[in-house]
Amino acid sequence: MFEERIRCADLRSRVMSADQAAALISDGMTVGMSGFTRAGDAKVIPFAMAERARRDPFRITLLTGASLGNDVDRTLTEAGVLARRLPFQSDATLRKAINRGEVMFVDQHLSETVEQLRTHQIGPVDIAVIEAIAINADGSIVPTTSIGNSASFAILAEKIIVEINLTQPLELEGLHDVYIPRRRPHRMPIPLTDPSDRIGETAIPVPPEKIAAIVVSEKADSASTILPADAETAAIANHLIEFFEHEVRRGRLTTSLLPLQAGIGTIANAVLSGFIHSPFHGLTMYSEVLQDSTFELFDAGRLDFASGSSITLSAETYRRVFADIGRYKSRLVLRPQEVSNHPEVIRRLGIIALNTALEADIYGNVNSTHVLGTHMMNGIGGSGDFARNAYMAIFATKSIAKDGRISSIVPMVSHCDHNEHDVDILVTEQGLADLRGLAPRERAAVIIERCAHPQYRDLLRDYYKDAVTHIGGQTPHRLERAFEMHVRFRETGSMLASTAEAAA
Amino acid sequence: MFEERIRCADLRSRVMSADQAAALISDGMTVGMSGFTRAGDAKVIPFAMAERARRDPFRITLLTGASLGNDVDRTLTEAGVLARRLPFQSDATLRKAINRGEVMFVDQHLSETVEQLRTHQIGPVDIAVIEAIAINADGSIVPTTSIGNSASFAILAEKIIVEINLTQPLELEGLHDVYIPRRRPHRMPIPLTDPSDRIGETAIPVPPEKIAAIVVSEKADSASTILPADAETAAIANHLIEFFEHEVRRGRLTTSLLPLQAGIGTIANAVLSGFIHSPFHGLTMYSEVLQDSTFELFDAGRLDFASGSSITLSAETYRRVFADIGRYKSRLVLRPQEVSNHPEVIRRLGIIALNTALEADIYGNVNSTHVLGTHMMNGIGGSGDFARNAYMAIFATKSIAKDGRISSIVPMVSHCDHNEHDVDILVTEQGLADLRGLAPRERAAVIIERCAHPQYRDLLRDYYKDAVTHIGGQTPHRLERAFEMHVRFRETGSMLASTAEAAA
Ligand SMILES: CC(C)(COP(=O)(O)OP(=O)(O)OC[C@H]1O[C@@H](n2cnc3c(N)ncnc32)[C@H](O)[C@@H]1OP(=O)(O)O)[C@@H](O)C(=O)NCCC(=O)NCCS
Ligand SMILES: CC(C)(COP(=O)(O)OP(=O)(O)OC[C@H]1O[C@@H](n2cnc3c(N)ncnc32)[C@H](O)[C@@H]1OP(=O)(O)O)[C@@H](O)C(=O)NCCC(=O)NCCS
Repeated sequence: MFEERIRCADLRSRVMSADQAAALISDGMTVGMSGFTRAGDAKVIPFAMAERARRDPFRITLLTGASLGNDVDRTLTEAGVLARRLPFQSDATLRKAINRGEVMFVDQHLSETVEQLRTHQIGPVDIAVIEAIAINADGSIVPTTSIGNSASFAILAEKIIVEINLTQPLELEGLHDVYIPRRRPHRMPIPLTDPSDRIGETAIPVPPEKIAAIVVSEKADSASTILPADAETAAIANHLIEFFEHEVRRGRLTTSLLPLQAGIGTIANAVLSGFIHSPFHGLTMYSEVLQDSTFELFDAGRLDFASGSSITLSAETYRRVFADIGRYKSRLVLRPQEVSNHPEVIRRLGIIALNTALEADIYGNVNSTHVLGTHMMNGIGGSGDFARNAYMAIFATKSIAKDGRISSIVPMVSHCDHNEHDVDILVTEQGLADLRGLAPRERAAVIIERCAHPQYRDLLRDYYKDAVTHIGGQTPHRLERAFEMHVRFRETGSMLASTAEAAA
Repeated sequence: MFEERIRCADLRSRVMSADQAAALISDGMTVGMSGFTRAGDAKVIPFAMAERARRDPFRITLLTGASLGNDVDRTLTEAGVLARRLPFQSDATLRKAINRGEVMFVDQHLSETVEQLRTHQIGPVDIAVIEAIAINADGSIVPTTSIGNSASFAILAEKIIVEINLTQPLELEGLHDVYIPRRRPHRMPIPLTDPSDRIGETAIPVPPEKIAAIVVSEKADSASTILPADAETAAIANHLIEFFEHEVRRGRLTTSLLPLQAGIGTIANAVLSGFIHSPFHGLTMYSEVLQDSTFELFDAGRLDFASGSSITLSAETYRRVFADIGRYKSRLVLRPQEVSNHPEVIRRLGIIALNTALEADIYGNVNSTHVLGTHMMNGIGGSGDFARNAYMAIFATKSIAKDGRISSIVPMVSHCDHNEHDVDILVTEQGLADLRGLAPRERAAVIIERCAHPQYRDLLRDYYKDAVTHIGGQTPHRLERAFEMHVRFRETGSMLASTAEAAA
């Protein structure tokens, strides 16, 4: 029955139930699971673990590529299994446990986790749990809709559990490009000079002996939770397309631009979709997650090639794309996140990086992770790998949140993920601020007038003027007032000054 | 007379006075000058410019490699010549003008300036002013004690002024390795896999026609202003050496460690000097500036090779080293700062990066640039290129400044240059905090107990406890109190709570 999926005959005897396989995982272990932006996650072992933990509590350190789908993080959190979690998550229940201090969340640049594991700075990984479409005759593992950190988890782990997922089509085989940098001091350049280059293997090379268990699953990837474009995301897309047209006119870019990276989420997806009705063509992507917009751009003849670490689609796009995956396969590659997010490749290719901010300040510093400076949303993800090393780093956000009670442009970010040196372009539905070559005082004027919501501009202008007058400096601030808007939101439910105050 | 130094006969007619050459520079121009950490700066043109500006005011944008010596920045500031300055400076007079908002200072990652110039995102450079030991027969320029951004300034500028410095020894020839990455999308990997690799030319290739003027100078580089090691810097060095010994025992590093980068300044120099009495040998450096300690390590037989972008020495070491430069030359190379600080090479080689913080917070975020969050000290320099992409990023600082009236460990950094994702090790004279794999709440305990000065520990513990109790989150903060210590310093001259307050 499994000939097609388990091509190494010796391994067929290791097929077992999820409960049996999960029994390999015990208290205190470090477990590396597949899964990146909801795609290609392990889908049965985590539930067996949760089930067991309810009877017989145990706690582990869980490493993944990025976020998981299928409520895996919720289920493991509720079962009390997670002591420590890295490098990224986006689950509402886990997030609450993290913010209560119950789960230690180590929020990392996505390119760094396996570098640290490989050099024993964190870890070691006791067990890897990897979703696969198949195991080859030589034991090598063919991943499904994501690679993420799976290859290095499998290579570095003591033992491997493979989840063969029968719903993941065998046609995915050949899509992956597994390249693992050599250990230092013998590391060579990564020989990748174009997003379409293939530099590695199509499967994860591991000796079959290390595969301790194989479990069969038939659970599908969770669909992406992306929202349709709205007036604001469409306005952001339009500002950016106008900006790129301007750059082409100035001779700084060609109409093929440079390889695009786009973060996860509604805004990034909307911007990419916006390229369908633009003068750009022959585009390429060198990104982490490939969303619906990637396939819309293929279909519109705008995009030539897309390199990612995962494919995360809405239910509808998933059906359409996977029914006809052969049509896209020659223009797609999935890479380990260490390669998709590698500083070397990002700088060499000259990526245009588009990521989303929760808030930005008047000097162009960006907070992507901490609500009101303290509460974790998802994590920094790959945004830091890209923004620091890109040709151009763009951050987008709506100018307000929570029906206008929060301004996403503030005097000082309450947490800094990307500092002014890494933020070239800031864009909201109000407009676009081109910050390249500007000093902080110049940035303030541009950001307030172009990006802030009109209802917050006076507050921001006043703050800036007050800071310049009373304190001055390269980056004028009144530290005692820097978080006034945040504190007011906490106390009154809105960052807006009350009319009484405003009149005073 | 100049046969030896101006080997292209046609160019000898372009020798002129500094005043004549400086007349090529006019109002509104962008000028790219050589100079990196006081070494190899243009030493006569700037004074001729200042002289002229006093009679006939004009303003320019000045780009350099990094900081200049010889009071060039002061002189140009006082003459009102600087409208805009990038990417780094360290001059007391210029700093004041920047902080008054009179000079727009664009503080950049040192690897990025020429990338942005090359792609016309900033610039263009009208005139390059490059200090050289010689001009070759083909017009190519042999730099002196630094390369910095000189090669790309010369290549990209409309015209070039060369300052031939007769005090810079001709023996420097052959020390430089000028490699310029190809333009995208045709860029290839940088073929550098060991700090000692030579991958480019020994001179800056420019057509002789572009050299519009040659000026002769006999002014020496300014000596470095490094202070001798004191009890605190010695304690920092000892903590770090003990830490590296521990890493070797754990099998994470060999006794040759990995290539070292060390920031400019007294602390970094003291730490490197500390290696003289350590069990480490066969060391290499892949750094920006090579200071006295580099040569002490050579002499002690500890260091095999050093790659940098400049050589900046104390007067005494300068005399000793340059009297005998042949002895060191085969173990030294100077590279453009784009290469010395390149993310690709930093990640590939696995650099151990050591930089200095002004302040760090209890969660491991670092401020390297802004005094009290507003006033520019020097700039971020290369610290962001290295910290983000290194194998390991170490930040060092004394635990207190200004006789204890300032704590360098604070609840929240008043400006964030390096966020917690980029800070692996934090060290003060009090002790060392190994932050790898720790979540923010765990970091707080380690940083307060190991790194903070005892007289500030209670204040920090109280802040943390209060933030956890009242707000919680991944990174607990009371935003209204986050800068209490900074504000108190401004108001009372000390971050310490007054005894009255403390008793309340
Ligand atoms: C920043 C990030 C959370 C934005 O996500 P998004 O879905 O595009 O943005 P939204 O505008 O829908 O905002 C998400 C939530 O944050 C809230 N929010 C937005 N701005 C806010 C602010 N300044 N303060 C507080 N909350 C804010 C929104 O109201 C919304 O809340 P809800 O979930 O209760 O509706 C997300 O992009 C992220 O996690 N980024 C970091 C990782 C990253 O960049 N990865 C890139 C490579 S994958
Ligand atoms: C951070 C930096 C300024 C420290 O310099 P340093 O000379 O090693 O450090 P010192 O401890 O002597 O401090 C320098 C000054 O800052 C003051 N200082 C130190 N900590 C301070 C703090 N937390 N708040 C305010 N002032 C502080 C010191 O008192 C001293 O003042 P002084 O000049 O009036 O005596 C310097 O390393 C720098 O500019 N770094 C950024 C660039 C960089 O890292 N480059 C690396 C690659 S070259």
